[in-house]
Amino acid sequence: MRDVSIIGIGQTPVGEHWDTGLRQLAYHALRDAMIDAGVERVDALYVGNMLSGEISAQAHLGALIADFAGMRGIEAVKIEAACASGAAAVRQGLIGVASGMQDVVAVVGVEKMTDNIGSKVTAGLAEAADADYETVHGISFVGLNALVMRRYMYEYGLKHEDFAAFSVNAHANGAKNPNAMFRSPITEKTFLNAGMVADPISLFDASPMCDGAAAVILCPTELAKQFTDNSVRIAASTIATDSVAIHDRKNPIWLQAAEDSARQAYKLSGYKPEDMDFFELHDAFTIMSALSLEACGFAEPGQGTRLAKEGEITLGGKIPISTMGGLKSRGHPVGATGVYQIVESVLQLRGDAGENQIPNARVGMAQNIGGSGATIVTHILERNE
Amino acid sequence: MRDVSIIGIGQTPVGEHWDTGLRQLAYHALRDAMIDAGVERVDALYVGNMLSGEISAQAHLGALIADFAGMRGIEAVKIEAACASGAAAVRQGLIGVASGMQDVVAVVGVEKMTDNIGSKVTAGLAEAADADYETVHGISFVGLNALVMRRYMYEYGLKHEDFAAFSVNAHANGAKNPNAMFRSPITEKTFLNAGMVADPISLFDASPMCDGAAAVILCPTELAKQFTDNSVRIAASTIATDSVAIHDRKNPIWLQAAEDSARQAYKLSGYKPEDMDFFELHDAFTIMSALSLEACGFAEPGQGTRLAKEGEITLGGKIPISTMGGLKSRGHPVGATGVYQIVESVLQLRGDAGENQIPNARVGMAQNIGGSGATIVTHILERNE
Repeated sequence: MRDVSIIGIGQTPVGEHWDTGLRQLAYHALRDAMIDAGVERVDALYVGNMLSGEISAQAHLGALIADFAGMRGIEAVKIEAACASGAAAVRQGLIGVASGMQDVVAVVGVEKMTDNIGSKVTAGLAEAADADYETVHGISFVGLNALVMRRYMYEYGLKHEDFAAFSVNAHANGAKNPNAMFRSPITEKTFLNAGMVADPISLFDASPMCDGAAAVILCPTELAKQFTDNSVRIAASTIATDSVAIHDRKNPIWLQAAEDSARQAYKLSGYKPEDMDFFELHDAFTIMSALSLEACGFAEPGQGTRLAKEGEITLGGKIPISTMGGLKSRGHPVGATGVYQIVESVLQLRGDAGENQIPNARVGMAQNIGGSGATIVTHILERNE
Repeated sequence: MRDVSIIGIGQTPVGEHWDTGLRQLAYHALRDAMIDAGVERVDALYVGNMLSGEISAQAHLGALIADFAGMRGIEAVKIEAACASGAAAVRQGLIGVASGMQDVVAVVGVEKMTDNIGSKVTAGLAEAADADYETVHGISFVGLNALVMRRYMYEYGLKHEDFAAFSVNAHANGAKNPNAMFRSPITEKTFLNAGMVADPISLFDASPMCDGAAAVILCPTELAKQFTDNSVRIAASTIATDSVAIHDRKNPIWLQAAEDSARQAYKLSGYKPEDMDFFELHDAFTIMSALSLEACGFAEPGQGTRLAKEGEITLGGKIPISTMGGLKSRGHPVGATGVYQIVESVLQLRGDAGENQIPNARVGMAQNIGGSGATIVTHILERNE
């Protein structure tokens, strides 16, 4: 199988794009990525998206976006794995290139959520959970995460304020990212004074509803030099799954699929947690940041919040996370998020992360979570020297 | 890249499965395919589905079905390309095996449409069309196909009765398929007396709303003998796309993506139309049968209905189609249909098609259409000798 690298990236600002349709939003990111890579047509397009049918009455995004981007006729499909759709689409693109059946592949993650804020989006996001055993009881997706957070606080004797550092860090980094939705730093006091969404998840524990699109262009590593001197190699790409319903898991406060996919990614790449210059984790809720750090070997069980409190997750810390604002501050357009994480990782590895640059970043990890942990996609990326 | 074969198949009867959930339905087909192949776990699961979010409030089918089938932890994603989701999922499975990243892969197509018959399903199916330029005007999916059929009849001077042979053939074959939804033969008179759905599409031009699941197990051809003596080789797998909106195409009565994907499949496999022992085409509407035969080189433009009238599409004809009843009589559970077509093709190539067996079938083609022709997936299958 062929080794695969990223030769182009593109993204739209995350926000409320009421004047831009799904296909246009996707096109903006795709066009920028193709210009960045210097390609005019690709062999295949993989679209990461979760909710276009429910929110925009539009399925069939593969053909729709391929045509709108001026590539009528090419192979194109949509990949869905709830909130992990974006990274899952990147992985399918990688498999396509690895197989030798496709040489240059585009992946675009796109989501529009704000045209229809309210019950449709809340119901749509709940589709990531188990309809027959969880959602049927009326619980929302944030409600499910609140149960996990409450249990975690109980097990480890933590208070709500222990999670503040995740949110403060995300907003500090997002403030300096021109594509972030929220660009104001917050203090611990802001965090503590925020209104509750679903106790103990407050407004500053949760990522926002938003619109956005991000794209990457992939090709075999052996061909990458023909396109750019700035390519980034995908050193590992893994997916692991778990039960969709939380009550079916052995331990509701342990992300088994994160552990499984990260462990496999470490093995494939030869890297260890301590080799990572950053970790773009899936901070849809602050509790998810803690659980991700623990499952991937950056903190002992129950110690995730301590790592944050000690400043080790900031840009100058031991393991910087959410370096461009994360889901919390950059925003979480669900099916696009996994691609944003990879685009931002490429910026870090290219040295193009601006004020948020981690000095001499050489290798990093991006992890995208579907549902409350049932699909977890991990990528390890490194600079091609 | 590795050559890929099918080593196991499974399917549920198509019908109204009000007592069976999505995951159970998918599991029945998957279990049968895994027993057929003699495997207890697979490396990856690809799910073909279009409407689970809209109709069953359930996204995230990859992880959900993998877990319910006893394979918690494995790689699993959903593929969506409107009504072509099933065959598109088979193609992703093939790419996974071809890449060398996955050895044994399961693909399951599943759709449940009848729990919620009425506006939800009609609106859901319309998502296969262009929401901003077609559906916004209030047209349904059958309405769009009716416009195409009316134009075709006008261009070639045809009457409604000229399409009868497609429906009569489908029902004759479906009557002998224990998994078909409709198992009564019809006459030309039944066809002519049917009520209109969207003029000129009558009840017997259109495929039904239904539930069903079908599955295949794939592995490298070089390993197939270890599992079975009955494997079927995928000689070609192709996808082509077109504009989603019909008005954007050069010719609204020509399936350009069918021509493109079929031509590429002929090239990859070395076979020609005249080599095909059968053609499992996408007869969602009788007009689609005519257009498919023409675009894939079995009839000259405008001659599709003549081929049918002359009996050449029956089991004993030059190019048998819908050999197990097709979408019209076996049924069209949209995201599962493409997998049903491939399962039925394997039955023919194994010599297991019962009363519908085409004597000594050695090579055949299956073609799955998304929307009114915007995504078309073509597979050519042949017996491994």
